[in-house]
Amino acid sequence: MKIKKIAAAFLASALLGTLSMGSAFAYESCHKSKWGPNDQLGALNNITKDNILAATKLIKQGKKMAMAIETNSKTPAFPPRTYSMTIVKPGQENGQTLGKTKLSYHDDILQTWVGIGTQLDGLGHIGIDNTYYNCTPGIEVTGVSGLKKFGIETFPGVATRAVLLDMTALMGKDIIPEGTPFNQPEIEAALKRQGNMKINKGDVVVFYTGWHKLLGVDDKRNGAAHPGLGVQGARYLANLGVAMVGSDTWGLEVVPFENEGQVFHVHQILLAEFGVFILENVVAQQAIKDGVYEGMITVGPHRTTGSVQAIVNPIFVY
Amino acid sequence: MKIKKIAAAFLASALLGTLSMGSAFAYESCHKSKWGPNDQLGALNNITKDNILAATKLIKQGKKMAMAIETNSKTPAFPPRTYSMTIVKPGQENGQTLGKTKLSYHDDILQTWVGIGTQLDGLGHIGIDNTYYNCTPGIEVTGVSGLKKFGIETFPGVATRAVLLDMTALMGKDIIPEGTPFNQPEIEAALKRQGNMKINKGDVVVFYTGWHKLLGVDDKRNGAAHPGLGVQGARYLANLGVAMVGSDTWGLEVVPFENEGQVFHVHQILLAEFGVFILENVVAQQAIKDGVYEGMITVGPHRTTGSVQAIVNPIFVY
Amino acid sequence: MKIKKIAAAFLASALLGTLSMGSAFAYESCHKSKWGPNDQLGALNNITKDNILAATKLIKQGKKMAMAIETNSKTPAFPPRTYSMTIVKPGQENGQTLGKTKLSYHDDILQTWVGIGTQLDGLGHIGIDNTYYNCTPGIEVTGVSGLKKFGIETFPGVATRAVLLDMTALMGKDIIPEGTPFNQPEIEAALKRQGNMKINKGDVVVFYTGWHKLLGVDDKRNGAAHPGLGVQGARYLANLGVAMVGSDTWGLEVVPFENEGQVFHVHQILLAEFGVFILENVVAQQAIKDGVYEGMITVGPHRTTGSVQAIVNPIFVY
Amino acid sequence: MKIKKIAAAFLASALLGTLSMGSAFAYESCHKSKWGPNDQLGALNNITKDNILAATKLIKQGKKMAMAIETNSKTPAFPPRTYSMTIVKPGQENGQTLGKTKLSYHDDILQTWVGIGTQLDGLGHIGIDNTYYNCTPGIEVTGVSGLKKFGIETFPGVATRAVLLDMTALMGKDIIPEGTPFNQPEIEAALKRQGNMKINKGDVVVFYTGWHKLLGVDDKRNGAAHPGLGVQGARYLANLGVAMVGSDTWGLEVVPFENEGQVFHVHQILLAEFGVFILENVVAQQAIKDGVYEGMITVGPHRTTGSVQAIVNPIFVY
Repeated sequence: MKIKKIAAAFLASALLGTLSMGSAFAYESCHKSKWGPNDQLGALNNITKDNILAATKLIKQGKKMAMAIETNSKTPAFPPRTYSMTIVKPGQENGQTLGKTKLSYHDDILQTWVGIGTQLDGLGHIGIDNTYYNCTPGIEVTGVSGLKKFGIETFPGVATRAVLLDMTALMGKDIIPEGTPFNQPEIEAALKRQGNMKINKGDVVVFYTGWHKLLGVDDKRNGAAHPGLGVQGARYLANLGVAMVGSDTWGLEVVPFENEGQVFHVHQILLAEFGVFILENVVAQQAIKDGVYEGMITVGPHRTTGSVQAIVNPIFVY
Repeated sequence: MKIKKIAAAFLASALLGTLSMGSAFAYESCHKSKWGPNDQLGALNNITKDNILAATKLIKQGKKMAMAIETNSKTPAFPPRTYSMTIVKPGQENGQTLGKTKLSYHDDILQTWVGIGTQLDGLGHIGIDNTYYNCTPGIEVTGVSGLKKFGIETFPGVATRAVLLDMTALMGKDIIPEGTPFNQPEIEAALKRQGNMKINKGDVVVFYTGWHKLLGVDDKRNGAAHPGLGVQGARYLANLGVAMVGSDTWGLEVVPFENEGQVFHVHQILLAEFGVFILENVVAQQAIKDGVYEGMITVGPHRTTGSVQAIVNPIFVY
Repeated sequence: MKIKKIAAAFLASALLGTLSMGSAFAYESCHKSKWGPNDQLGALNNITKDNILAATKLIKQGKKMAMAIETNSKTPAFPPRTYSMTIVKPGQENGQTLGKTKLSYHDDILQTWVGIGTQLDGLGHIGIDNTYYNCTPGIEVTGVSGLKKFGIETFPGVATRAVLLDMTALMGKDIIPEGTPFNQPEIEAALKRQGNMKINKGDVVVFYTGWHKLLGVDDKRNGAAHPGLGVQGARYLANLGVAMVGSDTWGLEVVPFENEGQVFHVHQILLAEFGVFILENVVAQQAIKDGVYEGMITVGPHRTTGSVQAIVNPIFVY
Repeated sequence: MKIKKIAAAFLASALLGTLSMGSAFAYESCHKSKWGPNDQLGALNNITKDNILAATKLIKQGKKMAMAIETNSKTPAFPPRTYSMTIVKPGQENGQTLGKTKLSYHDDILQTWVGIGTQLDGLGHIGIDNTYYNCTPGIEVTGVSGLKKFGIETFPGVATRAVLLDMTALMGKDIIPEGTPFNQPEIEAALKRQGNMKINKGDVVVFYTGWHKLLGVDDKRNGAAHPGLGVQGARYLANLGVAMVGSDTWGLEVVPFENEGQVFHVHQILLAEFGVFILENVVAQQAIKDGVYEGMITVGPHRTTGSVQAIVNPIFVY
């Protein structure tokens, strides 16, 4: 029932070794949302009816791809996250059935840190110096039994165009090496290689790195690092107006971080500065094998009130 | 933090009072799947590329509707289901931030019976006399830490046409009274009223009863009963080849049951006999207000290995 | 499965309404332990072999009294504490037995906030301005998966003399009214009434207020307030060298607090200043009915590593 | 956060490989309690006031020994048991304190299978062919949210004489090898070596095997087997009228079992046939080092309603 641990050594130095009790770094001040002081939607505001209608036109083969990996006790998880599932047969534990039609039933109890497996990171997940999206102080966000603001129940569901970026084909590697950053040059090169594609406002961008192939094969390597989005690339995508960014890695952004000690800075830029939602462990392999790089994506997270994150399974239709 | 209980009195008589240790009722023998002895997909097999392409053509307005209600400790839940959420800030509990960019972050821990709120019932949820879909004996299905077969991780994700049946307009009531069964006549009348619509093989059918309006308003009435699909209606829909059936009620099928002591017989027919998946607490109000009765639906459940059910949020695009 | 909530209204004003982000009150500086900088035992250091031998001599009738109330989902609990228990029969869910001797077995899964029911408060439970017992900064104590210091596993187990103080007989009331403080005059009067008893260094002192009689009878009244130890009384007992103090109430100290806004000040004095452990919901009724006010008490908490508190069941032998 | 697994290979053959759906073994019929049809105390009925008074006389040195090992995520646990602890600081997550006295506090949430670490096995833990102590059918015992009968809350607390049997000194080994059974000859030899001691009705008997020394040192060996009580020895002790039997091993009885396929037969004899409670992972090393083999033991389990087992910490006073 063990969770394979991600990045234990990495964390020891990157996180715990650099506790900031005072101010060692002059970070930019908080960013107010352009959608007003009460906005909780962030870059999802960029998705319009036109985005949905345009995405619809990309559905040509009549195929769908569920993008989630499995979540269970063996799924690599960021410490100290743990997972446990229990199956019960209430009232039937001694072999009984219920009623005249001899009903049998199973129920399931899930005890899990939500951030395991294929993830949606909500806007309350990451902040800068205890300030979250839209300059919201932590004291207005944190609640011990559920976030008071930016809980996943406020996520309105998404249908829009998704652009898949095949970094493996671009770089000619089956699995992109850890520590490889994706910034504007790499993103533009990938788009160019895929037929001079463009990223539009309201799109979801998903990197394919092949990294998911390490799951269950080399969890230690998987957990210690991975390729991913860089700081400049994050600002580039956010300024293009993307609604969400995802990858087939557990942390989206490049690990080790580009700048030592700037811990999960890409998360901070996307979530806290720009309100761009993050998807992790989303696998686009099937469509890419089919040579398809754009389609309609839908994201419908479990609406558990006050959740920071959600275990999701985006559906890509093409 | 309390869960409002559904149907306490109801259960006392319907379930606990009618334990079947022996055979009081000659139930039909198990049903082998027409898709072979190893099939775990059931009626999802009816969804083809043509279904997806046809559904795409129904997207005209560029709108999306997330169909989930919220799941939390106050959501009406079938006993003894409970829910608890905890928010933590690891390593930051004394006001610290992490790293040079002063990272702050929340994590969330979910402890819940999965069957609360908007639900997908997997094929392992309900059986007949300890036999599940495709004549699978319970001993091959049950596992204490996760189902050995029919776990939600085997659900392949869905995109297809959904047909919304507005029973409130048909019956001229804002909220359909509890105990009202929907069988072939009601279903056909609803289709006729909505412009002589047809249900096709591979469709998802969703009843709109207005019952969701009782949430948080009259949870006691909500939990005690509701309108819903009847036994004949279930067989009718299954024989049409529908992939899934849902409603804006916690149990889909009519409660009290049409035949006393035939406990959750509709669930047994859909899941165990026909392999038709069930959606509960899915709310179609927005589209129906827009006068739209068909569109594309996607269902992407969290892929928690061995889960019986999933807390879902289907996206309806129209 | 609901937990009856304690003091919702009370908390709204007393806790949440008086968040101290800055310094509104000049509190005394932290207290170093007289037992050295590494001490985690606090006033348990006062228990010597002589205490145990003296306690042994108090056992005259050959009786024992288990002092715990039950902990379950209906036990009044301080918000947002919740409790859930699940029983399973692994590998037997379809009526199977195991092995040639037809083994059947139940297992149990406990999901609970530890601070429900009869409690031992460890020295890491309560601090003053993020500083805990022995001037230990919070940053050295808090750990997301278990306290790094003062966890219950460091509690060495206790056997010593217990003095029971029957406040109901002293005050001539079956249940002492809420808000009644016990300070030096009340404690001395109780001792005098009970035959001029003395409290010795290393003793455990347990107040009997009759308050436990409200359990399941008037949980609302129970949860809103109770009688208990006052600020002066806490200092008086701590200076006598008592090892632990307990009562048959959920919070030991008098509620409402003697001084408005001085939230759980008695807890702070006992735990953070003096290292005196606290017992809550310990019921001495049986011995008091027998007219016995002293005996040997043992306290053996579950050694769950890093626990703040423990659900205990002290045994009083007399 | 992983639990080290006990006996995975062992279980595969001993438990799962020998599922009994029918009757392959003529087991003795159930045993009615001599204390009447409603008895839930079992052999605890043998503890009288004289037992307590006699035990008191054994306290000579004024010492106490807490007998528990720690329970945490690394404690060897019988599959699929898991453990998780979470520390929170409600309302203080952004560095706040509460009230004028600047209250800081930790709370703890425990999510654990109860049968990990030092254990008390209640009479509902083990049955024979779905029949439990006092010929009680499983259907009267099992409840999904807590046992309906024999829950730990019915355990009345224990104070009595404990006899420690030092098997390491008897056999001249620091750690008794796995698979070594303790039956009447070994028990009598140990008693003789310890000064011709006698076991009395109402006593608790605790074996010391040195096995606890493997904890954290060789968990694999620890989990695969251990020395312990044999079938004949169990009946011998039960017929002497002992109230409880314990050992410093995770399973008390000898593993591998004396008779292949007779899975946990000693547990069945003690709990289901005789109502003798079981203690596991209780360590008597300190007293044995002091050359002390008898004293007063107290056992006060957390009174969690409907628990099958309890995580305990018996106190031995001598």
